Amino acid sequence: MAKLVDTKPPASSLSPLQAERLAFRPQLPSVLTGPHSMVEGERRECVAAHSSVCAMFPHLSGSEAGTGGTLRLMRLVPSNQDDNGGAQGAPLRLGVLFSGGQASGGHNVIIGLHDYLQRWHPGSTLLGFLNGPRGVMQNNYKLLAPEELVVDSYRNQGGFHMIASGRDKIEKADQLAAAEKTCMDEKLDGIVIIGGDDSNTNAAVMAEHFLARGVNTRVVGVPKTIDGDLKTPDVPCSFGFDTACKVYSESIGNICIDSASAKKYYHFIKLMGRAASHITLECALQTRPQIALICEEVAAHRCSLKDVVYQIADVVAQRAQQGKNYGVVLIPEGLIEHMHDVSALIAELNELLAQGVNVADQADVSAHLSPESADVFDHLPVSIRCEMLEERDPHGNVQVSHIETEKLIMKLVEGELARRKAHGQYSGKFSAINHFFGYEGRCSLPSNFDATYCNALGQAAAALVAAGQTGLMATVSNLQHAASEWTVGGTPLLAMMHLERRSGRDKPVIKKALVDMEGPAMRAFSASRATWAAGDCFRVPGPIQYQGHCADTTTLTLELELNEGKAISLAGAESTNGAGPHAREE
Amino acid sequence: MAKLVDTKPPASSLSPLQAERLAFRPQLPSVLTGPHSMVEGERRECVAAHSSVCAMFPHLSGSEAGTGGTLRLMRLVPSNQDDNGGAQGAPLRLGVLFSGGQASGGHNVIIGLHDYLQRWHPGSTLLGFLNGPRGVMQNNYKLLAPEELVVDSYRNQGGFHMIASGRDKIEKADQLAAAEKTCMDEKLDGIVIIGGDDSNTNAAVMAEHFLARGVNTRVVGVPKTIDGDLKTPDVPCSFGFDTACKVYSESIGNICIDSASAKKYYHFIKLMGRAASHITLECALQTRPQIALICEEVAAHRCSLKDVVYQIADVVAQRAQQGKNYGVVLIPEGLIEHMHDVSALIAELNELLAQGVNVADQADVSAHLSPESADVFDHLPVSIRCEMLEERDPHGNVQVSHIETEKLIMKLVEGELARRKAHGQYSGKFSAINHFFGYEGRCSLPSNFDATYCNALGQAAAALVAAGQTGLMATVSNLQHAASEWTVGGTPLLAMMHLERRSGRDKPVIKKALVDMEGPAMRAFSASRATWAAGDCFRVPGPIQYQGHCADTTTLTLELELNEGKAISLAGAESTNGAGPHAREE
Repeated sequence: MAKLVDTKPPASSLSPLQAERLAFRPQLPSVLTGPHSMVEGERRECVAAHSSVCAMFPHLSGSEAGTGGTLRLMRLVPSNQDDNGGAQGAPLRLGVLFSGGQASGGHNVIIGLHDYLQRWHPGSTLLGFLNGPRGVMQNNYKLLAPEELVVDSYRNQGGFHMIASGRDKIEKADQLAAAEKTCMDEKLDGIVIIGGDDSNTNAAVMAEHFLARGVNTRVVGVPKTIDGDLKTPDVPCSFGFDTACKVYSESIGNICIDSASAKKYYHFIKLMGRAASHITLECALQTRPQIALICEEVAAHRCSLKDVVYQIADVVAQRAQQGKNYGVVLIPEGLIEHMHDVSALIAELNELLAQGVNVADQADVSAHLSPESADVFDHLPVSIRCEMLEERDPHGNVQVSHIETEKLIMKLVEGELARRKAHGQYSGKFSAINHFFGYEGRCSLPSNFDATYCNALGQAAAALVAAGQTGLMATVSNLQHAASEWTVGGTPLLAMMHLERRSGRDKPVIKKALVDMEGPAMRAFSASRATWAAGDCFRVPGPIQYQGHCADTTTLTLELELNEGKAISLAGAESTNGAGPHAREE
Repeated sequence: MAKLVDTKPPASSLSPLQAERLAFRPQLPSVLTGPHSMVEGERRECVAAHSSVCAMFPHLSGSEAGTGGTLRLMRLVPSNQDDNGGAQGAPLRLGVLFSGGQASGGHNVIIGLHDYLQRWHPGSTLLGFLNGPRGVMQNNYKLLAPEELVVDSYRNQGGFHMIASGRDKIEKADQLAAAEKTCMDEKLDGIVIIGGDDSNTNAAVMAEHFLARGVNTRVVGVPKTIDGDLKTPDVPCSFGFDTACKVYSESIGNICIDSASAKKYYHFIKLMGRAASHITLECALQTRPQIALICEEVAAHRCSLKDVVYQIADVVAQRAQQGKNYGVVLIPEGLIEHMHDVSALIAELNELLAQGVNVADQADVSAHLSPESADVFDHLPVSIRCEMLEERDPHGNVQVSHIETEKLIMKLVEGELARRKAHGQYSGKFSAINHFFGYEGRCSLPSNFDATYCNALGQAAAALVAAGQTGLMATVSNLQHAASEWTVGGTPLLAMMHLERRSGRDKPVIKKALVDMEGPAMRAFSASRATWAAGDCFRVPGPIQYQGHCADTTTLTLELELNEGKAISLAGAESTNGAGPHAREE
């Protein structure tokens, strides 16, 4: 049943900037401004294990005859209808939900859906499911259209509070049945899931289930995650990454300048990103700190905790020789799981916890560990050992996200420097401060890029549903050009999948896009970091601007990737010269 | 000897916004755009203990005959000279230094000095003393003028890194002698100290010393501190407060929205401000969180730790009844010292440390404490007890600033809620996250307000020195009007002083301006906080803007104070009608 909750913020509580942003109207890709139709593009294969994944999704992949699955890209193109009115379709009934952690721009996805429906399918109904996937299973929603005023007060605003988010899954039989019932009861033509890799994996499962059951609700995903690890050649970036990195880079830039002004502290800054270090890499490119650790590199080089500590201590000692006892170190949240010895220790601790070993006595814990892990454990600061043993996640394991990695590294570097000092190898002063920048980056007023990208993504998702498409992720591409030239379409969710071993069995999941050691962002970082470590090359991105030419920047990561993509595409155009589409047309 | 250090940032490392800000030219008060002269205004008395303070500063206060001290306000007025060139004076030699913690706008103070000298005293020399007061005592400086290019690359940039800062004092005989030698050696006409209350107290001591010794170097202070506790009727605010509060409010606003989107966390946010809670109060007015603790109020009501914990737990329990298990709590850094029982405990611990009692055994510590303090100590979380006992400040005392107050309060609230749950008085879920926003607010690119205010302050300081004034703080007032109408002058440093008992004797120091329980900011907060506690009234100030109408805001604290001041001043104007300056001119 519809539960109408009035969460429209009273106008009096808006800040001047909130009010100004309400009036901003993101530019639309031109294909969305006139009559258009959806056409098929290239065929895609799964990232890996294509046939196994397809076998698990027989309807979506088209291996089940007559189900229409084709694994083809979809692309919106201008249609030839002269009359805009003639291009309008029948009213649709759509549902939308947020899944997982917040990312700036989420409201604009919903507003893009809303605006598309109002423009091209007048009289449509948009249901906002409350509190994430749970809202679908419980059929608990807020009516978002045609109540124009509800969505209007969230234009270009941060957060997910219009309908709130949640972390439930829709993947087991009873959960899928509950979702199916809601979609049937509400006669939904489509449901749009705004989420990260896991949520979009669930979207594919739901799309397959609905096809198998003959349910007429199409399922479309939208790529959301501040971590930036949801991208493919067809999905240039996930939304929220741009804004979050800008919020963190503002603070990091400020702290870089503080360190160069006070000249007495090393700042150890932890940043979000457990699996992938895109945020840390982008913030490093933006601010040029002395050190930025990249999890993918730590893992690739099989670094131990000691390796990481030595690497930092070396830079500190080198700078001390120049009289510089200050600097900034960026540490991705996931570091602790990417150092092979620490991850082995955590695995052993989880075993001990599972066996019910009493972990109250730390000496006793050491006795139960392998000699290597015991050595790592015994050299950890007491407070970190407590964090490892006392906090458990819902599965009873070590609560990795609660370990203050930045404090751990900071204290061990301090110890290592004291050791070097005792041996006459270091004579500087070391005073350190730790920070964690995370939650403040998820709900900012979206940057112009995220506001515009999300609006287009929402319109793309609505266009896919309207075209009867299911099991796709909405895509907006060609981002190196002005928004009017952006292309709009969809990519098969299956094309992003591979198999992962989870709980003892192979599970098809969307593959996280990790930092590519050979990618343009990492290459740019590698080329400069030695200079940054030795010097004071700090760069101050400053706060996000919404007016003027500084308002039109995107992340350096995306810019570098788009430029590289452009170069590749140009090279491709040359090599196919005379045999390309134009040649064939002759 | 001059040590020329090239710290000019290479242009290639500038972000687009840094480059844009380099080109910004703050509006000047109109009095500074043409020929002007300095005139005497009203006489001021010390804040308290007038005659005792004056007796300690016989030359500055004018109690020593013939020294010229008058304790009068100074004000810059347009002069009647027709020819601008005629208004130009002889070249001057000026020194400038940063003292203490960073605050946004510091570079613009130096640029204001520089620009004033270039315009009105061409051929002048500006020496930037390196690393704070130490640079003066060691005569270690960087030449800032006429090297236009050096200061030009810092226009409207954050931080103090042009010449860096330091926390040394110039107050003892040998320190004063060293400073005197530098000023004599460099033949300085004046020295400008950019600092907080302690640094400006030192400025008065130096000014008095120079007068007594017949040294011709004038000393002028500039009010700097993000804490906002350096203000008087003549000093509307300290610079840096505006920018810092905006940086913190951006992050807090984002976290408020995150809490309302995820609906599962209470965020406990510690903010800078040990003595005064102006930052917390301003951020509360900007973001409207559920709870903001104000140290001055906690002290005024003689709150205990338990009182504070109960107050928060009550709000959490009240919200849980409405199904809201989320919210935001702001905690000023100084809270721990303002709860009477905790401050008594810290005093006792400091006694034990001074007596050399072994504090390794926490049970043993309890045995040495008074029953009241032992009770407080025994109920603290273990990690906080460790922080209290393990970390010492340079005087061997408990390192209060290292105690994670926000975590302490968070854990005690959690314990209190568990107790209430066990007694059936509370049935919500409580999950909390702690944050500390501090260093990232000190070195931001200054807001337009701070950039403009600091530029005017620097010009005011130069004008005071040029007019032969000493022992004054530069002032820029009339801030409720456009910058062109701002008034420029100085106020006697002695007028800001009172006596404080320090190390067993009365010391004349500049009095910190604490939050006024009856002031307009506190009244605005008090009138709304119950509504904010119960509801979701979050307001999102967003990132600092440099273009558009959102770029012209200042703090709500200053706005409220200026409005109130205006009302008072209007009332005053009415009462003196017919007897004011115009009446006398007839």
